[in-house]
Amino acid sequence: MAKIRPADPALSFQRMLRMLIGPRSGAAPAGGDVRRAVALCHTLLTEQGEFSGRRIATDALLAYALLDAESRETFFDHLVDDFSPAPDALSRAADAYRDDPSQKNLIRLQTAVEPPRQELFRRLNQGEGGTAVLVELRKQLLATLAKHPERAGIDADLAHLFRSWFNRGFLYLQRIDWGTSALVLERLIEYEAVHQINGWSDLRRRLDADRRCYGFFHPALPNQPLIFIEIALVRGLPAKVQPLLDPKAPVLDPTTADCAAFYSITNCHDGLRGVSFGNMLIKQVVEELRRDFPRLKTFATVSPVSGFAEWLKKTDPALTIDERRPMMRKVLDAFRGVSDDDKPAFAPSIQRELSRLCAHYLMHAKRNGKLPLDPVARFHLANGARVERLNWMGDTSSAGLARSLGFTVNYVYRLMDVERNHEAYAKDCVVAASPEFRKLAELGRRANGQ
Amino acid sequence: MAKIRPADPALSFQRMLRMLIGPRSGAAPAGGDVRRAVALCHTLLTEQGEFSGRRIATDALLAYALLDAESRETFFDHLVDDFSPAPDALSRAADAYRDDPSQKNLIRLQTAVEPPRQELFRRLNQGEGGTAVLVELRKQLLATLAKHPERAGIDADLAHLFRSWFNRGFLYLQRIDWGTSALVLERLIEYEAVHQINGWSDLRRRLDADRRCYGFFHPALPNQPLIFIEIALVRGLPAKVQPLLDPKAPVLDPTTADCAAFYSITNCHDGLRGVSFGNMLIKQVVEELRRDFPRLKTFATVSPVSGFAEWLKKTDPALTIDERRPMMRKVLDAFRGVSDDDKPAFAPSIQRELSRLCAHYLMHAKRNGKLPLDPVARFHLANGARVERLNWMGDTSSAGLARSLGFTVNYVYRLMDVERNHEAYAKDCVVAASPEFRKLAELGRRANGQ
Amino acid sequence: MAKIRPADPALSFQRMLRMLIGPRSGAAPAGGDVRRAVALCHTLLTEQGEFSGRRIATDALLAYALLDAESRETFFDHLVDDFSPAPDALSRAADAYRDDPSQKNLIRLQTAVEPPRQELFRRLNQGEGGTAVLVELRKQLLATLAKHPERAGIDADLAHLFRSWFNRGFLYLQRIDWGTSALVLERLIEYEAVHQINGWSDLRRRLDADRRCYGFFHPALPNQPLIFIEIALVRGLPAKVQPLLDPKAPVLDPTTADCAAFYSITNCHDGLRGVSFGNMLIKQVVEELRRDFPRLKTFATVSPVSGFAEWLKKTDPALTIDERRPMMRKVLDAFRGVSDDDKPAFAPSIQRELSRLCAHYLMHAKRNGKLPLDPVARFHLANGARVERLNWMGDTSSAGLARSLGFTVNYVYRLMDVERNHEAYAKDCVVAASPEFRKLAELGRRANGQ
Amino acid sequence: MAKIRPADPALSFQRMLRMLIGPRSGAAPAGGDVRRAVALCHTLLTEQGEFSGRRIATDALLAYALLDAESRETFFDHLVDDFSPAPDALSRAADAYRDDPSQKNLIRLQTAVEPPRQELFRRLNQGEGGTAVLVELRKQLLATLAKHPERAGIDADLAHLFRSWFNRGFLYLQRIDWGTSALVLERLIEYEAVHQINGWSDLRRRLDADRRCYGFFHPALPNQPLIFIEIALVRGLPAKVQPLLDPKAPVLDPTTADCAAFYSITNCHDGLRGVSFGNMLIKQVVEELRRDFPRLKTFATVSPVSGFAEWLKKTDPALTIDERRPMMRKVLDAFRGVSDDDKPAFAPSIQRELSRLCAHYLMHAKRNGKLPLDPVARFHLANGARVERLNWMGDTSSAGLARSLGFTVNYVYRLMDVERNHEAYAKDCVVAASPEFRKLAELGRRANGQ
Repeated sequence: MAKIRPADPALSFQRMLRMLIGPRSGAAPAGGDVRRAVALCHTLLTEQGEFSGRRIATDALLAYALLDAESRETFFDHLVDDFSPAPDALSRAADAYRDDPSQKNLIRLQTAVEPPRQELFRRLNQGEGGTAVLVELRKQLLATLAKHPERAGIDADLAHLFRSWFNRGFLYLQRIDWGTSALVLERLIEYEAVHQINGWSDLRRRLDADRRCYGFFHPALPNQPLIFIEIALVRGLPAKVQPLLDPKAPVLDPTTADCAAFYSITNCHDGLRGVSFGNMLIKQVVEELRRDFPRLKTFATVSPVSGFAEWLKKTDPALTIDERRPMMRKVLDAFRGVSDDDKPAFAPSIQRELSRLCAHYLMHAKRNGKLPLDPVARFHLANGARVERLNWMGDTSSAGLARSLGFTVNYVYRLMDVERNHEAYAKDCVVAASPEFRKLAELGRRANGQ
Repeated sequence: MAKIRPADPALSFQRMLRMLIGPRSGAAPAGGDVRRAVALCHTLLTEQGEFSGRRIATDALLAYALLDAESRETFFDHLVDDFSPAPDALSRAADAYRDDPSQKNLIRLQTAVEPPRQELFRRLNQGEGGTAVLVELRKQLLATLAKHPERAGIDADLAHLFRSWFNRGFLYLQRIDWGTSALVLERLIEYEAVHQINGWSDLRRRLDADRRCYGFFHPALPNQPLIFIEIALVRGLPAKVQPLLDPKAPVLDPTTADCAAFYSITNCHDGLRGVSFGNMLIKQVVEELRRDFPRLKTFATVSPVSGFAEWLKKTDPALTIDERRPMMRKVLDAFRGVSDDDKPAFAPSIQRELSRLCAHYLMHAKRNGKLPLDPVARFHLANGARVERLNWMGDTSSAGLARSLGFTVNYVYRLMDVERNHEAYAKDCVVAASPEFRKLAELGRRANGQ
Repeated sequence: MAKIRPADPALSFQRMLRMLIGPRSGAAPAGGDVRRAVALCHTLLTEQGEFSGRRIATDALLAYALLDAESRETFFDHLVDDFSPAPDALSRAADAYRDDPSQKNLIRLQTAVEPPRQELFRRLNQGEGGTAVLVELRKQLLATLAKHPERAGIDADLAHLFRSWFNRGFLYLQRIDWGTSALVLERLIEYEAVHQINGWSDLRRRLDADRRCYGFFHPALPNQPLIFIEIALVRGLPAKVQPLLDPKAPVLDPTTADCAAFYSITNCHDGLRGVSFGNMLIKQVVEELRRDFPRLKTFATVSPVSGFAEWLKKTDPALTIDERRPMMRKVLDAFRGVSDDDKPAFAPSIQRELSRLCAHYLMHAKRNGKLPLDPVARFHLANGARVERLNWMGDTSSAGLARSLGFTVNYVYRLMDVERNHEAYAKDCVVAASPEFRKLAELGRRANGQ
Repeated sequence: MAKIRPADPALSFQRMLRMLIGPRSGAAPAGGDVRRAVALCHTLLTEQGEFSGRRIATDALLAYALLDAESRETFFDHLVDDFSPAPDALSRAADAYRDDPSQKNLIRLQTAVEPPRQELFRRLNQGEGGTAVLVELRKQLLATLAKHPERAGIDADLAHLFRSWFNRGFLYLQRIDWGTSALVLERLIEYEAVHQINGWSDLRRRLDADRRCYGFFHPALPNQPLIFIEIALVRGLPAKVQPLLDPKAPVLDPTTADCAAFYSITNCHDGLRGVSFGNMLIKQVVEELRRDFPRLKTFATVSPVSGFAEWLKKTDPALTIDERRPMMRKVLDAFRGVSDDDKPAFAPSIQRELSRLCAHYLMHAKRNGKLPLDPVARFHLANGARVERLNWMGDTSSAGLARSLGFTVNYVYRLMDVERNHEAYAKDCVVAASPEFRKLAELGRRANGQ
């Protein structure tokens, strides 16, 4: 069955808007009316805007939301041209501060340096559905940033506001289960990026008695998880991800589980890029689970090794230099034989060699010579987890084979160690790992000729 | 019966903290440990603070909350000395911007101009009870600002954050009635500033079937109204405030009322000074009431003329100049005869003269020659109301006699006129008034020799 | 796409139980242990049962729920044999009452005539999920009643309790929309009997902005609607049901609708047979809608004529007697030509004749010479509606063609008339109808030779 | 400060009604209109009543609620005269059953024996506030029962319904704290019978961090606890009740407590007499507390010995017969010396003798030679507690001295023993007691000459 996903993501946004603001009479021009949208923004910053802010803001939000891609470009240009700080005033304030770095001059400079855009965004936020529209606006803006570096200032303003608004102190953790609103549940189906959810019956299994799902929410977006995590309560540290996803898997009595397996974590909003929640989510969820299920002993992920295949491809040229190591050559020959289309599983005959290389990759392959190259490893190591175990053919989905050559890896969270691990990682880029994994990586390092 | 109010306001804050954070073991040093509080703030801004932010923030908040007044002075000094922007880096960023006012340099300058304090406050807000403590911190800071102008920067940072955090888009309107939590209700008793609430049975009458009370709340302070308004549903525009407050007044069937009388509006938190809610509250409450009670025709206040007595005192010397006007002299003689202690009602014999003067005061007495001198008038006129009627002996409480010489005034909100009134007031300082009131004020103006 | 419906309804019940009670360790014997179930029931009625009622009741409920169909037969036999009143004691109480019909003797007789079963059911209800299991038990019992008339007493006890427990005073009306829990939403898909719901996207359209769904709920079954009704907000009285069900139909701004079309009403629980909710649901929903959408002018159903096809079949023999009326013969010839398998639409050429017959059927065909033969007509007429309009090809689904020969009929609810209509119907079986419909039925009556 | 309690309890009921039903226009006749109330009841049982039940029921409830005491007498008479079973029909049904005790005849007899009153009460319950009014009606009826034994049938009907409606399966446990609605909190002040609550600040202390309060609620009476229990979390088993009640007592960190002291349990509604909740409440609260505070080791009451003083008075004559025992004489002389007005504490000099007698009273004084004479002892022993310790001057309030001569007694609940204790008590009237208490009682028994 095909994944239930809106053909056009923008449609989904329109639908959300309609729910927030309700249907309005009066047909909108095709593509929306960018002049009206900009004019409403100007009005919003006047005296009248202060007085009737909510109504004008709602109209402006709707006017923006109705813009097509082309009109949005014009709108963004106006955000730069009409709502940036006045350079002259700014320079005068900077001069005054340099002459006399008093509190008064500091405050004057702070005021001068803040673009009118920021107040505009704050006032837009008063309108119905304001927060949702602004998050969407930033997402649409980010997509244009590469071509329009001059829009970086808009992004900086939104990022500044979002870091204030989505402060952890304002978020709440919520368990998501089959008793949750369908409005929230359809988001899971829409957003889940790691292991796609194939419709409602698939989702129901993921929310059954031996599964848990938690998300962070913001009060202004009550039906929109910001990030969510999926957990299987199982016996023993799982190596394979497919049994965890199988909609027909028998349901375990969760009070008999000894391991909580985190098999998916998803950031929902591109528009919130740079506002991070994952670290805090994992820690709080571990606390929740420990309280609810005192028998749980292990808190661990079943993660992809998502950069392995790509690293291996790039390693190839290097390899040709060193034709002496037959083990490595065997792996690469096998790798080359794997068609991107078919993505069959790797032959068990090269399991040993490939495992060593993969452990080596996780342990020693670095970005800029410091932090691990693997993005998932970076995330969990920075959170204080340690690499526990590598699992051959742990994810045999086509995505799993393509990204990770079928490997999964378990990162284990031990509450008593996380802070120490985190600091060693933060200071000295130390990769915490189990002795077994360390040994495997060492063999791989040698095989790789390092 | 005496007003129920904590003897020491700080106690109330400690109590709130205890409820938020829970009792902690371990005795705190008398006066708190300011070095520990500052050290925790420094830690919070490090890498470790990012990782274990919630825990460290909670500890820092508690450490701050335990400080006595003297230690708080030291703490504020540290906020200035340790957490202000680095002037050199700032100047360099300012220079770079002046040389090339590019987006990149603008963002660099924005970053340089933001004090580390702001990030400190954002991280403190992650701790339990963070928002509440920070609002309290600003209140305590404001009290020291007159003596310590160098702390204006701290205040600017907090004000900036609070304007973001307490954006109207994040607030929710909530009706407060006898079914509301006692946690909220005791706040009303504590905060009500206009017409003191004398204990729980007094409060109960104010929340009965023919009364309404609404407040704005923020999700992070669910038991703390930010502002609240009290309304009586009555027949006919009321002149006197005491019958509205009488705990023994018979309860009217509210569906038969034709007038909603707003008799009290209270801002609850000094720490939120400059973040205004009142205008929005009144407008939204009028909408709520219209929907619930379609028979309501009049939405009006029963307000004090709170600056009248003081203005009259100051007017006195002027009067001696013009000894010809016997009416005015009569009033002033009567006024002088009123002892501040006894505050008896004024004799009806001078009702006519006093009424004219009071109308004149509201209509023509100006601050800096532009806006009305009376603060309550400024608030309602700016919201688009018009002055409707002046009421002799409308408030015979000791406070009412002392401030307003017993007068009350009705400001009427007509939805179709508020925007027009507001703009005429905002642009040209036009005071909207009923023809009757205008005539009365004119007579007063002549009596006052202008 | 096939309807999502559990293959085995009992499975769904087990699933519900598991959610209510949670998974239990310890494997149950195949078919369950009927002796244990009965023994627990006996214990529950002892002193010990009074003391540890909740625990024992929960065990007994689970033991019952695990029984297979055969064991349930034995269980029901025990309910008759072990938990009926003692005939001797009952007779003595009856004698005592006849000799002296005092209050004391009346109470004694009341006590004697109440089977111990009733107290058993009350105590079972204390266990977790008790109410749900007892409703299911009655459903399972009812299915055996035809073969086991001696079990009528069990049914009488349950019916007596359910009429007390599900008293309207304890129910609450709840709007069901896309923000409702998936637990409730999947019930709609499962139970909807009139117009099948084909999965979640079909359901979503039925809960969109121009649709409404309301249900009655009982606090002990918070995720189980007892009855629900589906409404389309449209412009003009709709004739056809398919456009209302079309998942791709454009969404109307509901504030512009002038008609609320009730197109489906579903009783969810066979186990609550005889406890009626429908009449109250419609009336309360009309009130809700009038308040939310003041522009609504018409409240009407789009109903099947569900007994028409069957009546027509039975009418056939009668017709052969009267071969003079060519119109009627034409209809019946056409009707005979319609294969039950194909169920094609009727040819428009006989629309006029068929319409007259259908109106005649609704208006004049009686059960036992008094109440209308059509069950849907009986329901709405008893509720005070009137027959408004007959619609040719109003329901072209296979079920609609088979039952109603494609007709739909609109019953209109006018609040000012319902009580009068209801009484005329209740007293004299008067069928309220519009003049147009009455005329059509009269033509049909003549055609039918009456 | 005087207890806040409505002067006239009926007023409180009227107030509740007003909140439930809202104010109605139209003045009611003084004393209400009993003929109208009865007529509405008759209408409610007709066909029309079935159709418009909610509206008619609401009118009937209001009509009843407006009756004065005298009119209520007439109303009750009508409930007997107009709504009792028809004796003839009942006798015929009884005869039919005796001739043939079939299921059909049993059901017929059950139907005949049920008074129309019961259906009347069920229909009244559909009206707004129905359940609350019916509970009040029974309370008012019970007060007349001694003089009107012929009304026992009304009571039997209500008791039957209430046992169904207030089934444990429909109740929910709710913690009551300072965050609870004032509507509920004022009930605590009103109902608390064991240790009077002196206003809101007294109440606040009883709901602080080291106190707990739980109640059972029914969904139809969401603001009305049916029963509630007050608990102090303390260190060590407390002997004295006054420190637990002291509004100025310092607040303990509850996580450091090792004992949960149940110091008050209150049934709120006379109208629910005979529907018992206490046993279930204690057991469920113990489970809640164990989960929230794993350090709690002791769950015990601090109870009055409420029948001791009265028993001692009655013992007096017996004692004069036996002038040999000087210890007993000493006690009685002291007891005689205590004026009922002053109620001073007993002299410590007779502590030993009095304690022995009190232990003897609790252990051996019986009602009808079987169950303990003391009502509080009967309640806790039946619940499976054991008598642990007797405390001299444990309750020095005037009520405590008058009832219990200042004694308190601790009943301890040990989860592992309660079922065994309960059964030994239920079967053989065994009083579970600690060895120390048993010894003390033995000494008392000898002193009492038995």
